[in-house]
Amino acid sequence: MESKQYLLIPGPTPVPDSVRQAEAQQMIGHRSSDFTKIFGEVQDGLKQIYHTKNPVFIIPSSGTGGMEAAIVNTLSPGDKILLCNIGDFGKRWGEMAKAYGIVVQEIKKAPGQVIDPKEVAAALDADKNKEIKAVLFQQNETSTGALNPVKEIGEIVAKSHAISIVDSISGMLTAPMKVDEWGLDIVISGSQKAYMIPPGLAFVSVGPRVWPLYEKSKCPKYYFDFKQFKKFDEKKQTPTTTPVSLIYALQAALRLILAEGIENGYKRHAAMASFVRSEIRKWGLKLMAEDKAASMSVTAIWPPEGIDPEAMRKELKSKYNVVVAGGQGELNGKIFRIGHMGGVTMDDLKFALDALKKVLAGMGYKFPEGVA
Amino acid sequence: MESKQYLLIPGPTPVPDSVRQAEAQQMIGHRSSDFTKIFGEVQDGLKQIYHTKNPVFIIPSSGTGGMEAAIVNTLSPGDKILLCNIGDFGKRWGEMAKAYGIVVQEIKKAPGQVIDPKEVAAALDADKNKEIKAVLFQQNETSTGALNPVKEIGEIVAKSHAISIVDSISGMLTAPMKVDEWGLDIVISGSQKAYMIPPGLAFVSVGPRVWPLYEKSKCPKYYFDFKQFKKFDEKKQTPTTTPVSLIYALQAALRLILAEGIENGYKRHAAMASFVRSEIRKWGLKLMAEDKAASMSVTAIWPPEGIDPEAMRKELKSKYNVVVAGGQGELNGKIFRIGHMGGVTMDDLKFALDALKKVLAGMGYKFPEGVA
Repeated sequence: MESKQYLLIPGPTPVPDSVRQAEAQQMIGHRSSDFTKIFGEVQDGLKQIYHTKNPVFIIPSSGTGGMEAAIVNTLSPGDKILLCNIGDFGKRWGEMAKAYGIVVQEIKKAPGQVIDPKEVAAALDADKNKEIKAVLFQQNETSTGALNPVKEIGEIVAKSHAISIVDSISGMLTAPMKVDEWGLDIVISGSQKAYMIPPGLAFVSVGPRVWPLYEKSKCPKYYFDFKQFKKFDEKKQTPTTTPVSLIYALQAALRLILAEGIENGYKRHAAMASFVRSEIRKWGLKLMAEDKAASMSVTAIWPPEGIDPEAMRKELKSKYNVVVAGGQGELNGKIFRIGHMGGVTMDDLKFALDALKKVLAGMGYKFPEGVA
Repeated sequence: MESKQYLLIPGPTPVPDSVRQAEAQQMIGHRSSDFTKIFGEVQDGLKQIYHTKNPVFIIPSSGTGGMEAAIVNTLSPGDKILLCNIGDFGKRWGEMAKAYGIVVQEIKKAPGQVIDPKEVAAALDADKNKEIKAVLFQQNETSTGALNPVKEIGEIVAKSHAISIVDSISGMLTAPMKVDEWGLDIVISGSQKAYMIPPGLAFVSVGPRVWPLYEKSKCPKYYFDFKQFKKFDEKKQTPTTTPVSLIYALQAALRLILAEGIENGYKRHAAMASFVRSEIRKWGLKLMAEDKAASMSVTAIWPPEGIDPEAMRKELKSKYNVVVAGGQGELNGKIFRIGHMGGVTMDDLKFALDALKKVLAGMGYKFPEGVA
């Protein structure tokens, strides 16, 4: 008998049955009127999720492609950005920007820490020659399970000479994201996270303050060219061949998401995050992020002293078919992460934490008194 | 009752049931050992299809992303390429190269015509200063249904100072492609064509002559960076999140393809192309490409005088649920195209041509005597 796998990593996330069935529908032409009807529905759904009137482009790529699109469509070699680097995905963005000849001014935080909006304000104030063209930051840093104060940072940037570019790939749908209300210029998300669909699509909202920068941008681009996406988005299409089956999946997933209610989804994710954090604390383990900066989608945890997180993960998988993530980048082999987003349920988490408790006990960890 | 749609466009193509079922499997981690096992199997399958020992990178993008990857990883702004432009996809490649500051020397052909290898040889011979870094050409030009002599062009380029970059997106698996034997340096294909899986993946083989150019290349890149793909390919992974469900589909489709036999697949496509061409000829309609340059995957046809191909296509769809393609780019509204690749069967084609005959008759076309 094949047992159910408890997939608790920060993407890909479990895909609900109805979404997988939708995905398996037969192909139709991606420029047919039957398909543009579906495309129009998912465009509307994305705008609701983003809380925006701006177009949300659908890019056939992983989330990283969306992050690259944001850079090449707004900047020129030699331009300066302010990069808020609180983990591995911040680091990746900096490397990417440098590959395009962008000058990177960085606010860097230790793992688990988040950005203080005042620091962003100070950096922009100090930029008297208005050299900083964009402020880049993660909503949720997947590698450390830390949630930046997007609203506060976004509102500061909105009043400045720079645009905001927000990676909300592992944040979207798990914590509030009010694009228009907070004045966010570009916001990126990705299919394989709380959207509950397989990897392969990036979503990018583009606000009105972006287009003047687009016109000046000298970074070369073709596949990721926003003007092409705008032109085709208006026809309910993508410039190149649309990943038809992933759009089917997105349509089905958006219906589930909107039926639950976006605000209810935030609450469900907050409850899952809170449950994991309180259990882990009871066990005497250390969380990477403070409560006020806690991710709603993934919790990063320091293993007990003397217990190798990789051996622990292996045991958890082989004995209980529970899959949690290890550390990423410089945290590889040092921490473990529990994903709780999208189709993950509270029952999944209860099962997984129960299994984890048994594995830790088996590896010799002494739980505090009173922990069953 | 929902009737079966006969999808006869040059991609996306019908996806077999077993492939759609495979695609609908639940997610697993894209860096897990369970997944790298699947990834290893598809890597091997792709190499068999390409007839190559070179790595074939799997890129999360549409085919156009693969075409862009070939440019940004081998060239620098100011470099010259020889572009063989026999239709809309050749034109697209030229625009893309220019977006990256590449100087484009062009051999351009009228719609339906293909490249004479002697012209390529002459252009390379005349290039005394070895300015031409790469020769770019389509195996199969989707917009005109014309098949270039890849072997002959490839062998000429292999002996020259330039590398060959071949777009085989709508050609692969429908006509012979012997990458190593013909000395082809980069060959691109795409999931939604004869592979019989949904859109969303590009495949790119990279030969040893490419890497010295990679080292010199100054085009900026990150998402499409071959060195990252090489590093992760060796671990049976992709640099960013892998489109897991499309890899499931690819695994199932490759099993079907290899069970049929690659050579048998070429024969089946040749038989389908030949059937469509002979029927259309009997009807007194004009084919765009000559027999010796006939595509094995898509046939482009001039409609009878006085019959609007768009009205014809509309009727064909609404009355018979048969979907054929219109013209692309400058041929929009002037021609129609019948796709016959991947999961399309001879019975599908018979049904579709029968329906087309009725539609044409209904629109007043007088068939030659003897055509039933």
